[in-house]
Amino acid sequence: MDAIRNGWFSELSPLWPGQAMSLEVEEVLYSGRSKYQDVLVFKSKTYGNVLVLDGVIQCTERDEFSYQEMIAHLPLMSHPNPKKVLLIGGGDGGVLREIAKHSCVESVVQCEIDDKVIEVSKKYLPKMASGYDNPKLTVNIGDGFDFMKKNKGSFDIIITDSSDPIGECMWLHLDLIRDMQEFCSGLYQHVDYSYCTIPTYPSGQIGFVLCSTNPDTNFMDPVRKFTDEQLEELNIRYYNADIHRASFVLPQFVKKALKAPKTKVNNQPQEDGQNGEK
Amino acid sequence: MDAIRNGWFSELSPLWPGQAMSLEVEEVLYSGRSKYQDVLVFKSKTYGNVLVLDGVIQCTERDEFSYQEMIAHLPLMSHPNPKKVLLIGGGDGGVLREIAKHSCVESVVQCEIDDKVIEVSKKYLPKMASGYDNPKLTVNIGDGFDFMKKNKGSFDIIITDSSDPIGECMWLHLDLIRDMQEFCSGLYQHVDYSYCTIPTYPSGQIGFVLCSTNPDTNFMDPVRKFTDEQLEELNIRYYNADIHRASFVLPQFVKKALKAPKTKVNNQPQEDGQNGEK
Repeated sequence: MDAIRNGWFSELSPLWPGQAMSLEVEEVLYSGRSKYQDVLVFKSKTYGNVLVLDGVIQCTERDEFSYQEMIAHLPLMSHPNPKKVLLIGGGDGGVLREIAKHSCVESVVQCEIDDKVIEVSKKYLPKMASGYDNPKLTVNIGDGFDFMKKNKGSFDIIITDSSDPIGECMWLHLDLIRDMQEFCSGLYQHVDYSYCTIPTYPSGQIGFVLCSTNPDTNFMDPVRKFTDEQLEELNIRYYNADIHRASFVLPQFVKKALKAPKTKVNNQPQEDGQNGEK
Repeated sequence: MDAIRNGWFSELSPLWPGQAMSLEVEEVLYSGRSKYQDVLVFKSKTYGNVLVLDGVIQCTERDEFSYQEMIAHLPLMSHPNPKKVLLIGGGDGGVLREIAKHSCVESVVQCEIDDKVIEVSKKYLPKMASGYDNPKLTVNIGDGFDFMKKNKGSFDIIITDSSDPIGECMWLHLDLIRDMQEFCSGLYQHVDYSYCTIPTYPSGQIGFVLCSTNPDTNFMDPVRKFTDEQLEELNIRYYNADIHRASFVLPQFVKKALKAPKTKVNNQPQEDGQNGEK
């Protein structure tokens, strides 16, 4: 509870030294420690309910849609016919909610290590946790990396929505993004970086590293599209096909930093599908 | 100085209730009141020197380039041959620095109401205030609206970089942006909205309303381009032609809100040129 002072929650971290986003707190709804992390849920004055893990804002009801939609639809719309989807993390349920908007998806497996996150999300973030009402979903409580090792090649799409925010924002972690891009370039045929805006993540943006083992993948141009009617019916508020394309267009300083030649260290694909990783 | 507590500056405002960006302060370099506003300059721990007017962050040395480049190059690159440019506000000099990168521009007039802002910028923000080293520049200390009334039709481009941040960020002020767009649609042939990312502005973005009296203008597709070599030589770090185009691509919730039919209330052009307004 130390992060709350004088009625404000402040997000301080060595990952973004010298800066902090603060949100005014109306009421603390839950505060405790799970087996893995500090879990805090509060009702904010202007951003709805807010989930915080180990002092870092995970989602607010007001702006979560941009991130959840993009991390789901960017990889799913880059695949011609995704049927089997694995989600690592994403315990609040928002990414599951977005995956469920693709009728072509036949099965979804989630690996979330911390069931406490699912429990508090179902109680305090019902619009996100609605993602758990999917009959195609199987939830595994456990370590995502262990699960992936045991189930290689079983999924068309793997989305990693883990709570560690290193290497994500181009304004903060450009070197780390470049390192991750180089590492992934040794494993995948295609590696691209895109981003979305989201006020309550550090510096107001978050990035996505997209990787594919399929030489035909072109992440920058979606192979499937929601119609305007579908966007409306499915309550999609951030994503559309134009935003998909534009999200890969990078400011000059980012373009320059990430333009390093992709040196493939080996060509062994890790998975047979695509991997949208935060 | 009230905004600084325990070594942190916090940006609180009724324009963005319930949220605040904070920056860690190393040293207060200047604090005083000009004829018009409270002026504060501090050295931050991780964002370089920071200029604050009436409690609102105007620019930091670390991220100012995105905003200054976009507000200058978006309108200038949408005009085939801009020769006479008027800048309203922009006392820190950063927009002037960017305008000077266009060799076709023959004269620049700046109207800045508060000479104290120019004075502290020259002292504490030398990389921005380098914009004042332009032999083509005439500085007018006075009210920009008065100046515009007396000099109608004298400029190819008018850029308004005023300190009032109302109606700028799509995550915060969508209704105000829509109102401004509707109002401008009554005065101009073309009105468009674009945005850039900038960590130290509220919610991490800022928008631009671009207006033109020329029916041939297409803001979304620049008519002139910097080459990669020019971008490098001119130290342009955010803007490029692809970012120019992508900056007009809006998230679905913004696209929907701004899609209102443009009802022209009259067709009297106010100026003969283009107007890039923050």
